[in-house]
Amino acid sequence: VVTTDALVEGVHFRAEDAPDLIARKALRVNLSDLAAKGARPFAYTLASVLPRRVDEAWLEAFARGLAADQEEFKVALIGGDSTATPGPITLSITALGRVASGQALLRSAARAGDLVFVSGSIGDAALGLAALMGELAGLAADAARALAERYWLPQPRPALGQALVGTAHAAIDVSDGLIADLGHIAETSGVAAEILADQLPLSQAAAAALALDPRLIERILTGGDDYEILFTAPADSQPRIDRIAAETGTKVSRIGRIAAGRGVTAIDGNGRPILLERTGYRHY
Amino acid sequence: VVTTDALVEGVHFRAEDAPDLIARKALRVNLSDLAAKGARPFAYTLASVLPRRVDEAWLEAFARGLAADQEEFKVALIGGDSTATPGPITLSITALGRVASGQALLRSAARAGDLVFVSGSIGDAALGLAALMGELAGLAADAARALAERYWLPQPRPALGQALVGTAHAAIDVSDGLIADLGHIAETSGVAAEILADQLPLSQAAAAALALDPRLIERILTGGDDYEILFTAPADSQPRIDRIAAETGTKVSRIGRIAAGRGVTAIDGNGRPILLERTGYRHY
Repeated sequence: VVTTDALVEGVHFRAEDAPDLIARKALRVNLSDLAAKGARPFAYTLASVLPRRVDEAWLEAFARGLAADQEEFKVALIGGDSTATPGPITLSITALGRVASGQALLRSAARAGDLVFVSGSIGDAALGLAALMGELAGLAADAARALAERYWLPQPRPALGQALVGTAHAAIDVSDGLIADLGHIAETSGVAAEILADQLPLSQAAAAALALDPRLIERILTGGDDYEILFTAPADSQPRIDRIAAETGTKVSRIGRIAAGRGVTAIDGNGRPILLERTGYRHY
Repeated sequence: VVTTDALVEGVHFRAEDAPDLIARKALRVNLSDLAAKGARPFAYTLASVLPRRVDEAWLEAFARGLAADQEEFKVALIGGDSTATPGPITLSITALGRVASGQALLRSAARAGDLVFVSGSIGDAALGLAALMGELAGLAADAARALAERYWLPQPRPALGQALVGTAHAAIDVSDGLIADLGHIAETSGVAAEILADQLPLSQAAAAALALDPRLIERILTGGDDYEILFTAPADSQPRIDRIAAETGTKVSRIGRIAAGRGVTAIDGNGRPILLERTGYRHY
């Protein structure tokens, strides 16, 4: 499995973010994609496109971040390119993983009747960015910090992804936003998806932010940058999913279901559809 | 074999260059790298990082260029990423190729006594850029055009590269500049290299430019962007190299030799070393 993801300063991270965290995020968003395919990562290449203002200290911290995650995820940097740019820091990583032939998890494999699951918690990164932008004024400092840390450093789920091979139907990692990425599954699978917003796994910090401002549910549903695995599995698979979650030490929550039809609907605690201003990050 | 090369507007191409040629150049610089490893290309991923000013017509021409070269070089686009940028157009391609295990041509495999060869002609792209910048005032328009076309559209040498497996010792594709890339071979192989400037294969247009201004020899030696295969082979390999050149329909010229020691020297027609202001493109 081969995946390529690019990160751009001012789009995917902020100029003032720590260089080691930028490096790790650039690698991790790719590892997250491999995880959602059920693949075991083993190597990557890096194109680092850097403005001249980048100095030795920045590069050292950046390399330190890569080294830490190479160790943690057992992947090797096998090549790449370095070039100057008159523009923002731009990092393009291509990660390589292995999965048994024909066994990769695809976004197009959801079937009517499937349950919808997601790993970890949703909305933290988008709320973390909002906190960093000063948009969550009433939130306690430690909650804001916890959310920001999830924005800076996603947590790929390679063990979960690999364990889901043979059990999950469709899978994708949540990068554009929960609704948008579930939409990718629904569209390529030719099915409809419904999620129950009050079943969404929220961190304590996200729940605190949502309690202060219930309108943040939209940010949680559509904000993106979660890098959790969103997947579907047969209606009778709950016990197997629970076992996989326990064995891989990963929280997995059931959040909805797949039906015949098309489109994605989010339902609130009163059974009413939630109207969304936008469904996810649009690049253009 | 996996290779990653990034192209940045204003660094590797000009904003006004034709989008189909930009696309083909982005792909070809990667195919050139695979060729110099002796690998047969089969697939690539593309990260296209584009400013919002890029319009439908640009994207259509860009896609048309990729499609043309996918057909010509029998490679498939298997994935990638698209993202917006506040900066210049930035294209990062990772190309995948196959070579028999342990047979890839490496830059580190040159030995004292080897001959140095290069494919095609050297200096055209650098002179083409100079012509486009209005720096080659006395040159005939058709010569300037021929040079510019080599700047816009490199010609990878996959057939030659694959045929050199088992015969060549070290190989590299000339991107930073002939002197700099021969320097990479010399340094990683722990040897010295000497090239005879009057043996360099020049196109008619490059020869015409050089006749008008002999100082352009430095641009030819160090300008880069040639995307020819520079390789070394044993002293007795000339007949085999000639046969491979004929069989693959590729011009191959002997331009120097490898000796014990270190560094790269360029010798002029009178046996005197040519002093160079700079040895190749520096990214920082």
